[in-house]
Amino acid sequence: MITTGIVGATGYTGVELMRLISMHPDAKLQIVTSRSEAGRPVTKLFPSLRGAIDICFSQPDDEALSECDVIFFATPNGTAMEHVPFLLKNGNKIIDLSADFRLKNVDEWEKWYGQKHSCPELINEAVYGLPEVNRDKISRATLIANPGCYPTAIQLGFLPLIENNLVETDSLIADAKSGVSGAGKKLSSSLLFSESSDSFSAYAANGHRHLPEIKQGLQSICKEKLDMIFVPHLVPMIRGIHATLYARLKNTDVDLYQIYHDRYKDEPFVDVMEPDAHPNTNSVRGTNTCRLACHRPQNGNTAVILAVEDNLVKGAAGQAIQNMNIMFNIEETSGLLHPACFP
Amino acid sequence: MITTGIVGATGYTGVELMRLISMHPDAKLQIVTSRSEAGRPVTKLFPSLRGAIDICFSQPDDEALSECDVIFFATPNGTAMEHVPFLLKNGNKIIDLSADFRLKNVDEWEKWYGQKHSCPELINEAVYGLPEVNRDKISRATLIANPGCYPTAIQLGFLPLIENNLVETDSLIADAKSGVSGAGKKLSSSLLFSESSDSFSAYAANGHRHLPEIKQGLQSICKEKLDMIFVPHLVPMIRGIHATLYARLKNTDVDLYQIYHDRYKDEPFVDVMEPDAHPNTNSVRGTNTCRLACHRPQNGNTAVILAVEDNLVKGAAGQAIQNMNIMFNIEETSGLLHPACFP
Amino acid sequence: MITTGIVGATGYTGVELMRLISMHPDAKLQIVTSRSEAGRPVTKLFPSLRGAIDICFSQPDDEALSECDVIFFATPNGTAMEHVPFLLKNGNKIIDLSADFRLKNVDEWEKWYGQKHSCPELINEAVYGLPEVNRDKISRATLIANPGCYPTAIQLGFLPLIENNLVETDSLIADAKSGVSGAGKKLSSSLLFSESSDSFSAYAANGHRHLPEIKQGLQSICKEKLDMIFVPHLVPMIRGIHATLYARLKNTDVDLYQIYHDRYKDEPFVDVMEPDAHPNTNSVRGTNTCRLACHRPQNGNTAVILAVEDNLVKGAAGQAIQNMNIMFNIEETSGLLHPACFP
Amino acid sequence: MITTGIVGATGYTGVELMRLISMHPDAKLQIVTSRSEAGRPVTKLFPSLRGAIDICFSQPDDEALSECDVIFFATPNGTAMEHVPFLLKNGNKIIDLSADFRLKNVDEWEKWYGQKHSCPELINEAVYGLPEVNRDKISRATLIANPGCYPTAIQLGFLPLIENNLVETDSLIADAKSGVSGAGKKLSSSLLFSESSDSFSAYAANGHRHLPEIKQGLQSICKEKLDMIFVPHLVPMIRGIHATLYARLKNTDVDLYQIYHDRYKDEPFVDVMEPDAHPNTNSVRGTNTCRLACHRPQNGNTAVILAVEDNLVKGAAGQAIQNMNIMFNIEETSGLLHPACFP
Repeated sequence: MITTGIVGATGYTGVELMRLISMHPDAKLQIVTSRSEAGRPVTKLFPSLRGAIDICFSQPDDEALSECDVIFFATPNGTAMEHVPFLLKNGNKIIDLSADFRLKNVDEWEKWYGQKHSCPELINEAVYGLPEVNRDKISRATLIANPGCYPTAIQLGFLPLIENNLVETDSLIADAKSGVSGAGKKLSSSLLFSESSDSFSAYAANGHRHLPEIKQGLQSICKEKLDMIFVPHLVPMIRGIHATLYARLKNTDVDLYQIYHDRYKDEPFVDVMEPDAHPNTNSVRGTNTCRLACHRPQNGNTAVILAVEDNLVKGAAGQAIQNMNIMFNIEETSGLLHPACFP
Repeated sequence: MITTGIVGATGYTGVELMRLISMHPDAKLQIVTSRSEAGRPVTKLFPSLRGAIDICFSQPDDEALSECDVIFFATPNGTAMEHVPFLLKNGNKIIDLSADFRLKNVDEWEKWYGQKHSCPELINEAVYGLPEVNRDKISRATLIANPGCYPTAIQLGFLPLIENNLVETDSLIADAKSGVSGAGKKLSSSLLFSESSDSFSAYAANGHRHLPEIKQGLQSICKEKLDMIFVPHLVPMIRGIHATLYARLKNTDVDLYQIYHDRYKDEPFVDVMEPDAHPNTNSVRGTNTCRLACHRPQNGNTAVILAVEDNLVKGAAGQAIQNMNIMFNIEETSGLLHPACFP
Repeated sequence: MITTGIVGATGYTGVELMRLISMHPDAKLQIVTSRSEAGRPVTKLFPSLRGAIDICFSQPDDEALSECDVIFFATPNGTAMEHVPFLLKNGNKIIDLSADFRLKNVDEWEKWYGQKHSCPELINEAVYGLPEVNRDKISRATLIANPGCYPTAIQLGFLPLIENNLVETDSLIADAKSGVSGAGKKLSSSLLFSESSDSFSAYAANGHRHLPEIKQGLQSICKEKLDMIFVPHLVPMIRGIHATLYARLKNTDVDLYQIYHDRYKDEPFVDVMEPDAHPNTNSVRGTNTCRLACHRPQNGNTAVILAVEDNLVKGAAGQAIQNMNIMFNIEETSGLLHPACFP
Repeated sequence: MITTGIVGATGYTGVELMRLISMHPDAKLQIVTSRSEAGRPVTKLFPSLRGAIDICFSQPDDEALSECDVIFFATPNGTAMEHVPFLLKNGNKIIDLSADFRLKNVDEWEKWYGQKHSCPELINEAVYGLPEVNRDKISRATLIANPGCYPTAIQLGFLPLIENNLVETDSLIADAKSGVSGAGKKLSSSLLFSESSDSFSAYAANGHRHLPEIKQGLQSICKEKLDMIFVPHLVPMIRGIHATLYARLKNTDVDLYQIYHDRYKDEPFVDVMEPDAHPNTNSVRGTNTCRLACHRPQNGNTAVILAVEDNLVKGAAGQAIQNMNIMFNIEETSGLLHPACFP
């Protein structure tokens, strides 16, 4: 039984980790920390976990955490890096769901995240936890930088096009839409039901923190210079990301479906739909699946890829569990095979 | 392995049964029928089941169905009664999620459901599948009348008050609210997103088919005459029922919480919250739990009971699986212990 | 042209007042105050008002306010009472949308609102602004206590029953449901889209501040002792209140529709639907109408009244404008006759 | 007073026309037709119009319609063209909100709309009713082809870029998102609340009927060959379109805000926000405004234009009224200046 700890378990990523671990046959929740809720039963804050989890939040304490086999950080950016050096030294495995170890370029990290990095020397030790690209490295890693929600869907969507050198990579467009839970539990009036319900808007059109992460990931598999326009939008739904991806084909004599099918046929959590399908975010709600469909409108020279995922599962907690499974050499799908509720 | 068949699997109750069976360690889906979709893979209609279910819909055929250990009817009212006699004779177990065998009084059934009953002689053979009341009978039954969604929440909510003779039973009030999936996949303009979203209304205030079912169930445990006002409402949410129940206490010297706690402490799917709690429907979304809380406003003589459930799970498909587990003498909670996704 | 000022215009009641005044042929917005937003154009905070309003928020300043003909307080409870004495002395008319002057019993006010009242001597000067009851007094008033949202719907719903002595008044039940905007712009995680969407729950079942206000209003027209259970619920919609009201009839030989029709036939903002109708909240969205329907389920002895309103209009800002129109002796419906957007 | 008739008034565009005409100071509703609802009061179907409209639906009858000054067709595609020849001959003005007269190329129309055009000779008489482009022609027109909802937002969004020859027009991208009311009152299970709520998807990625309309409109003002990828998406909200438009700039030395501001500064229903703003669809809900914002992410060579409108107002009924105002030479904004409800 893998013993697990979660730092910062009061947010939406944290509660999703708790849900997934409570259903995992090989993992057990040992510690969940929260400064603000220490001492309080988890189920007081999250009645949805009544009957599934019966521990209390505790104060974050590296000593106590170090007795877990693996520690998940579901903390705001800048927190994990304060704890990671101690825990790594102690031999713990760490899966950081925040952005602290995602960008290899420290300067860029500090620019986008507006703070000094406290342990830049560990950045190279971190493995970017996208199993579809880095499975082997993940299996040997001790520190995982778990990908962001948009970066997961957008990279999985573009990968086959770029790996096969099929598109002009200097003008990629990612028009992405996220449910409101993607913003976390932030107390902002724009996230109140009254303001975000029955409305739709773009945000951060001029630059979102996930852009450098996406570009770093895709550039690493691309021989040419890669550039991208990324415009995120807020959808009045709780969970789900839909990325609509546009790329100009170098050659229209391609069978996009076949290429995507071949690339992902052995991936347990990437599902390529038949040609001309339109995946719905509710078909992956609560699951670790990224579902894709390929289009080439009017048989022209633009590939349009549609990618959906649950931002809190494949885009966060589920992918973290998938990474844990790989790191501990158990079945990669363990605890993660539940179909979505529909409707 | 229990082999199962579902008749009428294209509706919301049907797809929920398929989801639950796909996760059940001891049951296997053998046949799912649909006149309109026969020959089509289930996942074409329900992409949420891709990877979980890989059979096709078939034409309803009693011979084929009779090779299943248990057959679920997720059909419109009036269909199950056409198939049940043959299957019962054949020795199959049947769980009918429609209303065909719920009312013991045939005349009343025919009045409320507007049709002739084709096998009234079987009504008494049917066991009303509310495990919290009829567990023993269910374990010996071959034909289960699976309760309606409102009746489940409302009966579980009122039971302890009535069993303990605590309230005046001639003036019970059940003000109930349901998510839109409770109306099924009916193509009515009032159920379109554009009309039911961002709005709220009552419906059928003058008489809903679930009223005689609720009264029959509660009367059966009540020595005095029982009467009830039942007003259902439509809530702009997908799943969930919230029943707000009002009853006049005969005596205010009662500890409602203790009474409810004691009544349900061994029930795996009824969760009594601490005094003065307010259960949210999203805390049971996708689960088989009915969650209750008791109030006595201003310490007066009115008991106010709040009961929530997922109308498609404890209110339909989940309770059907719970009944199956009891009938086949396996762990009652088998395949049904997954916490709700939150948020 | 009536010149108006709004104190505390950054909340939902404030922005609704601004919308309504911008469409009013006889009123003009002169000052809108906000401590936090002073100096900022109103349209920066509320782009919905671009083209309709072009003033800036200013610091609250009684001198400046006193140059308006009428001042609306759309402030948290406890603020208006600090400003009202000065403005009244100055001869201004005041419409307070907060609760500061709603309860005649100061002790009760202080108990429910958890603070000391700073000008109890003015409470009796205040007229409770429910035009359907107090139209004449309102026309002569200088200080209006504008009713709460729940109290408006619930009082209008019960009024004809009580005025006509038709029901037992010691056991009234008001099961009320409100859209999320009723909670205002409060930054509470339970009001975030992710938590309040796709869910439903009761709250404050043991006592809500609007209860004493409702009871005071109804008691004032009732000869017998009046008591009520009031359970509010949160609906995942933006605007709208639906009150489902239950009362035991003393005599079942009544034509409820006729009684309601007669009571309200000359009221411009109360609409009684045909018997057995079910009003939807979206039929009054954005309007000043309270729409009612009467039921007597199973022809029994319980009257069930359904009442809907827009909590921000008839339940707040619209009723305030209606009161202004009456106070200034202009057409009562002026600026308030716009049908709801549907869908 | 302009007398108006509406053919096909039971759909969402029809009810919106009725709402707008009921508030119009210079227009009056004389006839509303519906085959299915003939004889029934409008308010039975649309309680939101109680108090505003008190006529009944009648059978469509060209003679009766011809006594109106202007007839609106809010009918399915293919209906208006059956009535228009008679009414035109009779001297009536016609505003067709369906697509019958939008495409100048009959073959293309017949291909996309899958039917034979019954009066191709009238197509050239029709003026495309986008006032921001065709105001003069509209003022002299007798037959208006009222633009589609997506075409309105997308053309207004791209216009300044194309008129000023600023972008490469062979690779425009329009990623558009619409509320569910855009699909009309169609009884399709995918439009039920249970299926479209809390979800998001693209649809018709390989070709939507509005594409040829958009391309025809933009090509008419463009000297170079114009091509576009147009991917529509369904948003779980009632009203609103958000178009996110991408175009490659020929030259990055441009002040997009200034260009848009100058183009639209005298347009009463196009509102250009400050640079880097993100318009919300709820800021135009119920209004005739199209609100725009311009971005050039990372100061690169891609212009990103954000355009929002209410699909039923500026995208349909509101624009129809705007066209009527122009045709009858009354104030263009008459009856159309109401700010959006927020929240």
